[in-house]
Amino acid sequence: MIKKYYLLSPGPTPIPEDVLSIAAEPIIHHRTPEFSKIFMEVTEGLKYVFGTKEDVYILTSSGTGAMEAAVVNTLSPGDKVITINAGKFGERWGNIGKACSLNTKEIVLDWGAGYAKEQLEAELKANPETKAVLTQLSETSTGAIYDIKGFAEVVAKTNAILVVDGISGLGVMPCPMDEWQVDVFLSGSQKSFMIPPGLAYLALSPKAWKMVETSKCQKFYFDIKKAKKNLENKTTPWTPGISLIMQQKKALDRIKAIGLDGLFKHHQVLGDATRAGVKALGLQLLVKNPGNILTAVKTPEGLDGSKLVKTMQGKYMAYIAGAQDPNKGKFFRIAHLGYMGGFDIITALSALEMTLKDLNYPVEMGASTQAAQTVLRENWE
Amino acid sequence: MIKKYYLLSPGPTPIPEDVLSIAAEPIIHHRTPEFSKIFMEVTEGLKYVFGTKEDVYILTSSGTGAMEAAVVNTLSPGDKVITINAGKFGERWGNIGKACSLNTKEIVLDWGAGYAKEQLEAELKANPETKAVLTQLSETSTGAIYDIKGFAEVVAKTNAILVVDGISGLGVMPCPMDEWQVDVFLSGSQKSFMIPPGLAYLALSPKAWKMVETSKCQKFYFDIKKAKKNLENKTTPWTPGISLIMQQKKALDRIKAIGLDGLFKHHQVLGDATRAGVKALGLQLLVKNPGNILTAVKTPEGLDGSKLVKTMQGKYMAYIAGAQDPNKGKFFRIAHLGYMGGFDIITALSALEMTLKDLNYPVEMGASTQAAQTVLRENWE
Repeated sequence: MIKKYYLLSPGPTPIPEDVLSIAAEPIIHHRTPEFSKIFMEVTEGLKYVFGTKEDVYILTSSGTGAMEAAVVNTLSPGDKVITINAGKFGERWGNIGKACSLNTKEIVLDWGAGYAKEQLEAELKANPETKAVLTQLSETSTGAIYDIKGFAEVVAKTNAILVVDGISGLGVMPCPMDEWQVDVFLSGSQKSFMIPPGLAYLALSPKAWKMVETSKCQKFYFDIKKAKKNLENKTTPWTPGISLIMQQKKALDRIKAIGLDGLFKHHQVLGDATRAGVKALGLQLLVKNPGNILTAVKTPEGLDGSKLVKTMQGKYMAYIAGAQDPNKGKFFRIAHLGYMGGFDIITALSALEMTLKDLNYPVEMGASTQAAQTVLRENWE
Repeated sequence: MIKKYYLLSPGPTPIPEDVLSIAAEPIIHHRTPEFSKIFMEVTEGLKYVFGTKEDVYILTSSGTGAMEAAVVNTLSPGDKVITINAGKFGERWGNIGKACSLNTKEIVLDWGAGYAKEQLEAELKANPETKAVLTQLSETSTGAIYDIKGFAEVVAKTNAILVVDGISGLGVMPCPMDEWQVDVFLSGSQKSFMIPPGLAYLALSPKAWKMVETSKCQKFYFDIKKAKKNLENKTTPWTPGISLIMQQKKALDRIKAIGLDGLFKHHQVLGDATRAGVKALGLQLLVKNPGNILTAVKTPEGLDGSKLVKTMQGKYMAYIAGAQDPNKGKFFRIAHLGYMGGFDIITALSALEMTLKDLNYPVEMGASTQAAQTVLRENWE
């Protein structure tokens, strides 16, 4: 049998063929009007997706680089910050805080747990010297989403800034930066932006820009002031990932054609269909507040979760994601963000059913796909 | 007329068609055995090009990111370092030193000036507390090369490490890291490595690794200890530039097929041909110690250097590079590194002749191409 490769992970995500082929075009020089034109079009397109009038900066790095950039450009050693750690990426904010000698108050929760804006409000009242709240729009390690709108309402009343990692959430669910008053918003190219990894995007509110002026954290490659000065000349301080930016232009054309609302609705349907399928198999979702980025499913009692993922990937070439340390094997993640269609969900669920059968788990073949099909069909437009 | 785009700049450089097309292939997930295999093959290939038994780390950033990584992983605030500033990139070491609160002694020279190992030896004797010497294999802003072999001999006798930016020089001219005792060696993907910008490469000697243990500079994204730990599991700490790494594998196949000595000889011929052509037009080279990375040519008396570059680029679409601030207009740079053939040199020189004619500079059409052809033909094998 010819076995095809199905990418069903929350980054990298599948890339449209016409976006892939852009990378096969000859490279043009980045210090030219031709490239500046593309670069500025991408910058404008990103502003649309971010929902901001502020400039969005294109960094040549993975999303973690933009997380570091968010911290080192606004904060100083010793600054008090609050991080919400209910997964791998919330934990990462704490690690960056440590690396930058911040005074980090980590709110450590169970993986996938929720956190209410009232809790954040109380925390901020108890810690009035807080300079920043660092969180995620979507916690990629569990698929849980946070109430960023509520967080922003609470943080806006203080002197602190709200820093939101939108690496997997941005473009999948609403989070209009300016309207909601997010102060630092960032994302990565390999998620809903539908291009390969290698670029990261970062925007700052006027409140955050004020903090840039006094920030004392060490920085060079990620220095946003250098990026700002260069953007005035329609360029970047360092050589950018040219081919990726060319690809992003094409992918943004697609995003603009669908429109943000269309994109949100699309992901909603895929999320609903996946959850319906999983429930039809009698399996349990990991989190109470799942977003439409991915669906995390608890490994059924008695099964080896690592073996389940290995079979999905190795035998059926359905590249879902496992759970990350320290929860390896306890759950698995079916992603539905980026360039995914309804039949990708059917593929994921079919492969899951076949895998469960292989592992001698009682499963009615077709139960989950049937449920998903119903959701997809009702919303197919 | 159909006008074709000729990339003749010292980065980005032209990319072989079969390497470009790799980027149009579907993305595979980076936490899989399939990708790990490619990743480790690239790591091994880079070790060959670097001339080292040490691991070469793949960073998703431009070359400047690797420059920052070299500093923040080995040094601490207050450390005395020596930088050789005879161009834009030597100056950059000083700027990174400033950003990281190092005690930087900048040796400021005229752009393109040479610096002898005896001078460095005297400097190190006068500053015995020096922790690092930061320099370039090739100063891309002028095309001048340094005596890294000599520098290394001198530095090896001290407690300092020699940090060499080989962004444009590595792969073009010899600099076997282990044999010459270079302590930190780094490069970027868009030069002789023949792929688009977006990746940077970094290797450390045992002497440099010792300094990693005590380094106190702030770091997170570029933390080499995290990269080391992940490399043991054949992966990277953060999502890597997957498509670029896939391209690098293909380009390394080409590099290995030619062999390093073949590559050096190739660049020698292109450099010789370019210099012969430039001299045949009665123009002057900028530097006394030119490498085979690029040829910097002084703007002839009475001509507007910026206009010359603009005409080359705008009218003839021959994308040579101008001089960078503060020497804008004073000279221009014809690159001959990466995926360049003999006829690319002929193209560059022809366009230069036509441009000079357009600017009413007395020029004998064909004089430079004739001279270059002779060099190329004698060495064509």
